[in-house]
Order: sequence, then C-alpha cells, then structure tokens
Amino acid sequence: MRYTFNLKTLLLATLLVMPLLFGSIAPVFAQEEAPAAEAAPEEEAGPVDDYLELVESSGAEYAPAFDFFTTSMLWTVIAAALVFIMHLGFATLEAGLTQSKNTVNILFKNCFIISIGLITYALIGFNTHYPGDFNGWIKFGAPLGAGNVDDTWGYGGLSLAMTGYGDFIFQAMFAATAATIVSGAVAERVKLPSFMIFATILVGIAYPVVGSWHWGGGWMGDLNGGNGFKDFAGSAVVHAFGGFAALACVLLLGARKGKYTPEGIKPILGHNMPLATIGVFLLFFGWFGFNGGSVLSAAPGPLGLVFVTTTLAACAGALGAILCSWIVLKKPDLSMTLNGFLAGLVGITANADIVSPAGSMIIGVIAGIIVVLSVIFFDKLKIDDPVGAISVHGVCGIWGILAAAIFEVVPEGGEKQFGIVGQLVGVLAVGAAAFIFSFILFLILKVTIGIRVSEEEEAEGLDIAEHGAPAYNI
Amino acid sequence: MRYTFNLKTLLLATLLVMPLLFGSIAPVFAQEEAPAAEAAPEEEAGPVDDYLELVESSGAEYAPAFDFFTTSMLWTVIAAALVFIMHLGFATLEAGLTQSKNTVNILFKNCFIISIGLITYALIGFNTHYPGDFNGWIKFGAPLGAGNVDDTWGYGGLSLAMTGYGDFIFQAMFAATAATIVSGAVAERVKLPSFMIFATILVGIAYPVVGSWHWGGGWMGDLNGGNGFKDFAGSAVVHAFGGFAALACVLLLGARKGKYTPEGIKPILGHNMPLATIGVFLLFFGWFGFNGGSVLSAAPGPLGLVFVTTTLAACAGALGAILCSWIVLKKPDLSMTLNGFLAGLVGITANADIVSPAGSMIIGVIAGIIVVLSVIFFDKLKIDDPVGAISVHGVCGIWGILAAAIFEVVPEGGEKQFGIVGQLVGVLAVGAAAFIFSFILFLILKVTIGIRVSEEEEAEGLDIAEHGAPAYNI
Amino acid sequence: MRYTFNLKTLLLATLLVMPLLFGSIAPVFAQEEAPAAEAAPEEEAGPVDDYLELVESSGAEYAPAFDFFTTSMLWTVIAAALVFIMHLGFATLEAGLTQSKNTVNILFKNCFIISIGLITYALIGFNTHYPGDFNGWIKFGAPLGAGNVDDTWGYGGLSLAMTGYGDFIFQAMFAATAATIVSGAVAERVKLPSFMIFATILVGIAYPVVGSWHWGGGWMGDLNGGNGFKDFAGSAVVHAFGGFAALACVLLLGARKGKYTPEGIKPILGHNMPLATIGVFLLFFGWFGFNGGSVLSAAPGPLGLVFVTTTLAACAGALGAILCSWIVLKKPDLSMTLNGFLAGLVGITANADIVSPAGSMIIGVIAGIIVVLSVIFFDKLKIDDPVGAISVHGVCGIWGILAAAIFEVVPEGGEKQFGIVGQLVGVLAVGAAAFIFSFILFLILKVTIGIRVSEEEEAEGLDIAEHGAPAYNI
Repeated sequence: MRYTFNLKTLLLATLLVMPLLFGSIAPVFAQEEAPAAEAAPEEEAGPVDDYLELVESSGAEYAPAFDFFTTSMLWTVIAAALVFIMHLGFATLEAGLTQSKNTVNILFKNCFIISIGLITYALIGFNTHYPGDFNGWIKFGAPLGAGNVDDTWGYGGLSLAMTGYGDFIFQAMFAATAATIVSGAVAERVKLPSFMIFATILVGIAYPVVGSWHWGGGWMGDLNGGNGFKDFAGSAVVHAFGGFAALACVLLLGARKGKYTPEGIKPILGHNMPLATIGVFLLFFGWFGFNGGSVLSAAPGPLGLVFVTTTLAACAGALGAILCSWIVLKKPDLSMTLNGFLAGLVGITANADIVSPAGSMIIGVIAGIIVVLSVIFFDKLKIDDPVGAISVHGVCGIWGILAAAIFEVVPEGGEKQFGIVGQLVGVLAVGAAAFIFSFILFLILKVTIGIRVSEEEEAEGLDIAEHGAPAYNI
Repeated sequence: MRYTFNLKTLLLATLLVMPLLFGSIAPVFAQEEAPAAEAAPEEEAGPVDDYLELVESSGAEYAPAFDFFTTSMLWTVIAAALVFIMHLGFATLEAGLTQSKNTVNILFKNCFIISIGLITYALIGFNTHYPGDFNGWIKFGAPLGAGNVDDTWGYGGLSLAMTGYGDFIFQAMFAATAATIVSGAVAERVKLPSFMIFATILVGIAYPVVGSWHWGGGWMGDLNGGNGFKDFAGSAVVHAFGGFAALACVLLLGARKGKYTPEGIKPILGHNMPLATIGVFLLFFGWFGFNGGSVLSAAPGPLGLVFVTTTLAACAGALGAILCSWIVLKKPDLSMTLNGFLAGLVGITANADIVSPAGSMIIGVIAGIIVVLSVIFFDKLKIDDPVGAISVHGVCGIWGILAAAIFEVVPEGGEKQFGIVGQLVGVLAVGAAAFIFSFILFLILKVTIGIRVSEEEEAEGLDIAEHGAPAYNI
Repeated sequence: MRYTFNLKTLLLATLLVMPLLFGSIAPVFAQEEAPAAEAAPEEEAGPVDDYLELVESSGAEYAPAFDFFTTSMLWTVIAAALVFIMHLGFATLEAGLTQSKNTVNILFKNCFIISIGLITYALIGFNTHYPGDFNGWIKFGAPLGAGNVDDTWGYGGLSLAMTGYGDFIFQAMFAATAATIVSGAVAERVKLPSFMIFATILVGIAYPVVGSWHWGGGWMGDLNGGNGFKDFAGSAVVHAFGGFAALACVLLLGARKGKYTPEGIKPILGHNMPLATIGVFLLFFGWFGFNGGSVLSAAPGPLGLVFVTTTLAACAGALGAILCSWIVLKKPDLSMTLNGFLAGLVGITANADIVSPAGSMIIGVIAGIIVVLSVIFFDKLKIDDPVGAISVHGVCGIWGILAAAIFEVVPEGGEKQFGIVGQLVGVLAVGAAAFIFSFILFLILKVTIGIRVSEEEEAEGLDIAEHGAPAYNI
C-alpha cells in the first residue's frame, strides 16, 4: 500500500477537530449582527400569526400594502434564482461553442466566477453599487451587514417592495455576469490564474463602481435633461460593460492559434451544439428573472409588459439572425440563430418597460441582424471572440440603449423622456470605463504573470494542461 | 488577404447606419399604442405608492381582491416561463432520441418553432384563439394590441385574475407546442424549408382556430349537455392536436430509410440518452406551469390539487411504462420509461383539476401502459415516429379526454358533468381537424417544393446537408 | 414479415378496450374522496369572485391573512417544482461522474426513484412522516386522503400557510432524495432489481419514520433542553440519512473492479463533465426551493435571509474546495469544485434561517474543505463512492447540524437555543438509524437475490447488460 497510515490518521483527525476548532472562534462572527430574530418563530405560532402581528404593528400607513410587499419580495427571490440559472446557461453555451479539449477549463472558470462574484459582492460590491449619498462617481462600501437588513419596511420604506436581503441577492446574481461575458471571449487560450485575478477585480470593484453611476444614484441621473439615463435592466451597465471589457482583453490576448491564417479564416467549430442550445434556452429562461425582476415589484402591469417585450424581442432576434445568416452565409446557421436570441434579449434589456410589443419585435429583429453582421465584422478584423460575446453583449448592448430612445412609448399628453444623445453618452461612458479599466488591469497581468498559455498548452488543450483531466471519456 | 476592404467597410457602415435608419421610421410604430404609461413610474414614487394609488382608484368592488390579482398575475408569468422551458425539453428529447447526424437540424427546427410561434401568435394567433363574440367556428383576429392591454381589471374584469399581457404570454408559450410535437415525428428526413412553412401555418392559423372551439367560447361549449367539453389544459386542443397533425405528416412522408426492412424492424437508436432524459425532466418541470398555470389564478385549493394530480400521474406513468416494457420487451427500457412520464402528463392534462390523487395515479399507470403498446403498434404498422410523438400526444391525449369523464370526482350532492360520448366527440373533432388540415397542407408542399430530403442527404445526415456543420466535434 | 397479424390485432384491441375496461371499475376510486369541489368553478364565475366569496365566508379571524396564505401556498408549489428539478440534477451529476457504459442504468435508476418515491409517499409516506399524535418513534400512516385536504384554513389552521396538497407535494419531492443519494454511491456495480427493492423500502418506510422523529413531532423535540433538534431543511433527516444509508450499502457492496489495486488507487474518471456541471447547477437552483420552501411561507424576512445564506454558503463551499484541492491535489479540480458547491449547500441546510451571512460563508468554506479531505479519506479506506455522496451528504450533513449550534445568531436579550451535544445526539441517531436499517435490508438482499452484478456484466457495463442499449451512439 502506497499511502501511509499517518496521512489517513491526519485526515481523519482534521475532519474531527475542525468543527470543534471553529466552534471556539465562530461565535465572534455569529454575534456580528442579528438579522434572524424573526426567522426562528416559536413552534406554537405559525407564519400566519407572525403575519397578523406584523401587519398590526406596522401601523396604518404600511399595513394595507403588506401583501403587495410580500408578493413582490417573493418575486424578487424567484427572479434571483432565475438569474442564477443564467450562469449555467453561460457555462454550457461557452463550453458548447468551443473545443472539447478546453471544456473542463471553461466549466471551472464559470464555477469560479459565480462563486467569487457572489462573495465579493457581499464583501464589498453591494454597498459600493448602492452607496447611498455619494459624489456620483465612486464610494467604496462596507460588507453586507446590519444596514442592509430589515424584514419589511425599514429597508426601503414605501419606495422599495423588498427586504435588504432580497435586494442584495437579486443584484448579486447580476454581478458575476460581467466577468462571465469576458470568459467566453478569452476562452481557449487565457491563463487560468490571470483570468481568476482579473475576474475577481472586475466583478468586485469595477462592476459596482460603474453600476453606481446609474443604479446607485450617480451622475447618470443628470443625463437626458434630468430624466436620467434609461437602462432598465442593464443593456449598458451589465452587458455593454461586459462586452467592452471582453474587447479589451481579446485585443491584449490575441487570436487562437490557427484561426487566422494566410489562406483566410479557418473557423474553429464548437464541439457540442446541444450543449450550446441548452445554454441559450437557459439564458432566455433566466432572462425572465433578469428583466422581469428588474420591475422590482410584482406590479401586474409592468410585469406583463416586460415579459411580453422580452419574449418577443428574443424570438424576433432569432428570426432576424436566421434570415440574415441564410442570406449572408447561404445556410441556416444554428450558432447564429442562438446568438440571435441573445442579441434580441440584450437589445430589449434597456427598454423592456417602455416599448410596445410591436416595438419590441423591431428591436429584436434588428438586434438579430446586427449580431450576425457584427460577428462577421470582428472576424474580419481578426478579433477572435469564440462565442461572439463582444457582438452579443457589447454591440447589441449599445443598440438596446439607443432603442430606448427610439422606441419609447410616449403616453398621451406626455412627452419624450429619453434622447439618442443622452443615451449614447451614457453607454459610451460605460463602455469606455469597462474598456480602459480592463485594458490596464489585463496589461498589468500580461507584463507580470502573463495572460496566455504556452503554444504547447494551447495545442494540447487547457483541460489536460491546467486541470489534468479531460472533459469526456466516452 | 482574401477579404476586400469594401466588404469590411460595408459591414461597419451598415452596423452604424442601421440604428439611425430605424430611428427615423420607428416612431411610427412606437406611437401605435400606449400600454406602458404606468410602466415608467416617476423616480421618487416606488411601486408600493403606485399600488396604494391603484387600490384607492379601483373602487370598492375591486379593491379587496387586488392582492389576489397581483399574486395570480405573478403566477401566470412564472407559469409562462415554465412552459417556455418545455421547448428546451422538446428540443433535447427529440435530439437525444435521434441520430447524431441530424442533431443540428433538430435544434434549429426547435429554435425556429418557438420563435415563429411566438411572433405569429402576437400577429394573428392570440385574437384568433380568443375571438370574443364569434360564430363558434372561426374568426381571424387582429395583432396583439390595445384591446388586449390593461394593467389591472379592465381586461377581464372580476372573471380573470391577470392582465391582457399576462393572458397573452401564457397562451403564447403553449402555441408553439403543437408544431414541436410534429417536429419529433418527422425528424431525420423532412426537408427544412417545407417544415418551416408547415409549422408556421399550423401554429399561426390552425392551432388558434381549433383552440377557439374550446377555449375561445366556440361550439364545444355545447358538448356534454351544455356543461362543455372538459379539456383542462389541453390534452385535446394542444396534445392530440399535435399528435394527429404528426400522424398526417408521417403518413405523407414515409419511414426513414433502413428502418423497416424485409428482415423486420431495425430500431434506429437515439444517440444521446442523457440529452433525452434532460428533455423529459424539463418537460415534467415545465408541466407544472402548463397545468398549474391553467388554473388561471393562484387559488390555493385548485393549485395544490393540480400540482398533486399532475405529479402523481407522471410518476405512475413512468412506473406503468417500466412494468409494461419489462414484460413486453423483456428489459427495463429507458426510452419507454421517459415516454411513460410524458404519457402520464398528457393523460392528466385534460382532467387535473377534477380528479382525485387516487384517480390521477390510475390515469397515469394506464397512460404509461398505453404508450408502450401504442409505440409498438405504430411500429408494426410501419408508421415511423422517431420519438413516439403520435403515441405520447395523440393516443394519450385521447385517453386523457376520456379519463376526464371516467375519473371526474362528483361533489356530494352534485352530479356528473362530463360523459364519454361528449368527450369522444370533442377529441375526435380536434384530432380530425388537425389531421385533415395537416394532410392537405403537407400534401400541397409535397407536390410543390417537396417534403423529403434526397436519399443522399438522409444518409449523410441533415446537419451537413442542410446546415453545413456537425453537432459534435469531440 | 416477421410479425403476425395476431399480435398487431391484439395490441390494437388492447388499446381500445383498456379505457372502457377501466371506465367500469374506475368510479370506485373516483368516489373515494371529494377534494375537488371548489376546483371546478362554474363557468360564469371567475377566480376573483371565488376569492371574494372565500374571504367573506372565512370569517373575521382568517380573512385578513388570506392573501398571505395564497402567496405562501404559491411559493410552496413553486418550491416543490424547484425541488423536483434537483432530481434531474442528481441524475446528470451521477451520470456525468461515472463511466459512459453505465449511463442508461443510472438515468433509469433516477427515473425509477422519483417515480416510486412520489407514489409510495402518497400511499404511505406522508402520513407516516407527519403522523399527528404518536409515540414519538413510529406510527404508520394511511394513504394521502381526505384528512390531508383542505383548500384553505381547515388543514393547518393559522399555523400553516398552505393547503394539505401543498404540504404533501413539497414534502413528497424531498422524499425521493434519500434514495437518490444512495444511488450515486452504489453506481456502476449494483444489481438493478435489488436496488429498486432497496430504494422503494428506504424511501417508502425508513425515510418517513426517521423523519417523523424530527418533523413529525417525535422525540427529537426534547433535544437541546426542550428547544428541539435544529435541522431547518434536512442536513440530518434528508442528507445525513441518505449519506449513512449509502455508507452501509457501499460497505456491503465493495469497490468497483480495478479501482483499488496493489499498485494504488486508479481513479475511474467521470465520462462527461458538462453533464456533471449541469447537475450541480440544477441542484443549486433547486436548493432555493429546498431551503427557501422550508420557510413554509412567503414571510419576507426569513425568505430573504435563507436565500442569502444558502447562496453564500454554496459559493464559499466552491471556493473552499478549489483552494483545498489546489493545495492537496496540486491542481484546480473541477469535480472537487462541483462537490464544494454541494458541500456548502448541505452544510447550510440545517441552519440557513438562524445564521448571519458572515456565518454562512464560514460554514460554506469549511464544508468545501471538509468535502475534499473526506473524499480523499474514504478513498484511502477503499470505500468506493463514485460521486462522493457519503462525503457530501453524510459528512457535510453532520457538519451542518453542528454548525447550527456554533453559528446560531442569538438575538439581543435572547439566549442560545441549540448546543453541540444535543445536535450531535440528533444527527448520530439519524445516521445510525439510516446505517443500521440499510445494512440489514441490503444484507438480506445480498444473501437472497444478490446485490452485485457479475464481473462480466460490470466489465461490459450495465447499459448493455441490464438494459440492452447504450447511452451514446455518436
């Protein structure tokens, strides 16, 4: 037997001692805050009793709206779960559209991103994203804590139909998205530790700072003549942010070996189209939470509208991409169709609550056409983006922001709120910030620890080179 | 470099010009209707304020039920999302049960169906499906528009706990199902453009017209002595409709080459059973929305009953299929087990709200047995249905309709509402309509542009032949 | 033609006769109970009318809380659907982490477990799990029936915000989990019929009996000085129960051939890491229902807290496993990362409603470290667990129970409710019961019909040996 008894004993001892060890130090943490007082009701009283007590205690102003608050909060956490599943969508889409020799690496990256994204958002991101009173540009926040907690009205008063934890978890699920978008663009040649450092800083610091300009009450509120920047659920502050970060990284990283040859472009085909399709449908599914949850309540009117516009834009996007790819590429291309869904979804994300169903279809069709042309365009420029992330999230993100101004439905007697110029200023600011921050950070990594695997590792595949295990053994 | 600068410039210019181009024509569409007035609340007022205002303004009759409306509407859109994910279930099930050389084709078809299904349902289907006052047989509707929109009570009054958009999106997710069912049956040899035309017309016209007979207030309301046809969530008007359309298409299309030989039936095995299993579990998951959402509110009693009967029928269906396949085929067959789940689900769909849990288990077991025998039976007849769609949706759809009459729970002091004859008349009418319409339409396509790929293309596989790309590169 | 006309005729006749046959005997079942009286509203009255009537009729005490009840019940059934999808997660995780030649067998087992689990839970489990007044140890219950049914308050009064059917379906989805955990540990060499018998008895009898000690009002209520055993959503009564049942089975079954050789441990790699990753993300997704639904209402405070602690623990678990595996195994291991998510989830399951976000992160990190060490430890002991089920569910289940005592947040002025000793007694009692019951039952199966396939079958793979069909034909 190759393994000594000592190692076995050590492991066993570690397992047994660990709980006791932490038992002695953990109460320090446990006392930090006390959010769970109501969370542990006494056995004899049920939740309905608690509810009645709460309604009574909250006084005349709040009581009638308590049920609305409860339903809205329920929707918020369900929407958070839906956004969570988008990360599986990203993981499978990215894995499906790349080579099988890099699959473990891609899946690992996505597991890491969602994990580090959530944890950093709790430690610093959330209160940086929503800094309260600040200079409009930047204010780093404290970890998620007592100030973010209230079971009912104390957190947001009448202006927010969710608890502090509800607000956190919904926004936290968004946060990792930006890094995930980059992951797809740099796939198949990025060095793992460098990407992990980059992703951590991007999602932990850059994303919430830039996001605070719009959602945190920052300077973007002055755009469009004081009506504010219109970016409903994040075409700019999530998708264009990720897309332009991806562009910066790809420019520094270079194309995969063998893609751009003197004889022309040699497409590197995805290894598993069912996996890619699963990814896109899960992203579509999760987008109901992404956009629907961004209503920030269960208000029936906006909720219905957002579901309809989101769906129709996605479907129109697929049809637009089918049509465009059939004409341009002379065949009905599945991967373009899949990107067409996503293009429509990114395009509607900025404006889902202010356009009509007819408008949403047009936004989607155009997004679907744009994404096909854009993917071809970047390929011509030899900017190698294996999954089309820059086109889907960056270019269509811009389109969504502009579409908000173009397709805004003006109520009778009302007037237009958002203009092309104001919208363009906003999205370019976000894109520039993402690009510059990413370029500098990734450049530092490039000149220090390096950002690209060796040619041998790239040829062998990152699964064996970095993880020592293949994805498939069929 | 093989690509000229001109193409690159043209693409870039197109990308840039497109938004501006549409910016000038789009306002025409944007002004069409103004549903989004309440969707853009002013910054300072939150959703709870809006809610309180709405409750106050809606008057004494409606106010107390507003929370119920809100919760019901929330359930409606969540259910729509669940039904959406069924389309991924169909796509993966169909892909898994067929050969790997046709996988891209199958995935593409499913992407197309959900897209065109949603768009045609918005353009014509919805208001044809729910025509309001009509002759009971057919009335083509206008596109989704102002008449279908109200944030709260104006749409359905006290009789419908959802907004117009909520009603639309839930029903729209159903609509594409019929064409998807056909897709599985004609897989691996159908010509893509013909199928796309067929699917578009089936889902855009035939489905809503036939559906209007039952759900749109049509002639089926006179069945069962005026109690109406009992088809809770669509065993007939969705599943049998799709199953009999599939039967017509398969009869015109013929079997796959090499399946029925002089030496007997040569099974063509599915290429990826994990994919097929993912498909069935996602369909089961989505069925909670399909049946649960068909309660059309969040009323706790019916909702709980429907979840229980739906689940027990599916599970009993799997057990019935396991038992039956083990006896008949001498082995525990996975694909039969998977079809057993679906058989149980189709069987309970007509009656989930009027049977007991015990009844639902019996309905499921019988459906699971039926589907195994039916799959074998159609194979004997040389009717080649790669995924068993005709058996699962057509045959078990009939069974579900009859089961409504057989297992209806009659409340104490009440009397039986639904009879075998009335139910049979209804489901045969639906099946006949689907069959005849599909037969004629597909026949026209056959004699014009053709419905079947060439023998060479079938042998090579549709992925390369029609799409120029394989599904796997492992 | 090899098939005679007689068989064909027989099949057709069977299909046709079956509905009629059952039509004559079924009404016996249908009359058993009448739960669906309100489930079939008259056509003219809509759900809102029904609601108003119900509110009026339920009297002063219940009326104000009716909306809370409705929302809570909606959450309960949605949570049940989320827990359902965990079974797809288990199926794909287990299939992905094992060899491709046993994939059909694994998928079949998982289809069977969910089916038989639901059905037995309806027939005996539910009312054994929640026996009402009993001796604290065991009382077998009747099938799901009239006593479990009420549309609103009659079932649980003010102490439970769900109907009887809602209670049933949520708990039923949990039940099959225990057997599923075992399935992973015995994969690749267990004899199918033996496993099916074992799983049926485990899930139908052992699980609800042991569960009744805690959730059914049994003896565990006396632990912790009368405060009761703290196991919020089942780290012990679901996960440790399954983990220790798995340990017993593996000890009786022995390791897979070729894993432990005189030359050392030869890892048997999983055949499909994307499948395994899909599994873990779906389990994470479903856990929002598992833990979130265990709030047993839509109360906003606890719901938000549970979502946050569950998510942070899972993410911290993955990070802990990445760190630990990188140090110990010298590489960032994907399968360890995946198990890290699950470890964190199992660890938080006992205590998600009484710890702080900071506490949940620590619980998760430790769980992630524990699972890596534990997997290595059991491998050293030559206890062959292909998916790490004993470590994930058994060992981390214990950790979660202890963590409840360690990280419990004590409200200001309150006092600690749960102690290490009381928690340890509880979890060891559950583990011992699961182990002993499983050991005896599996031993009986071993000496009677056998529990292990032949060496030839194991080498060939269970797919061909037991099911006659491979999983892949790519």
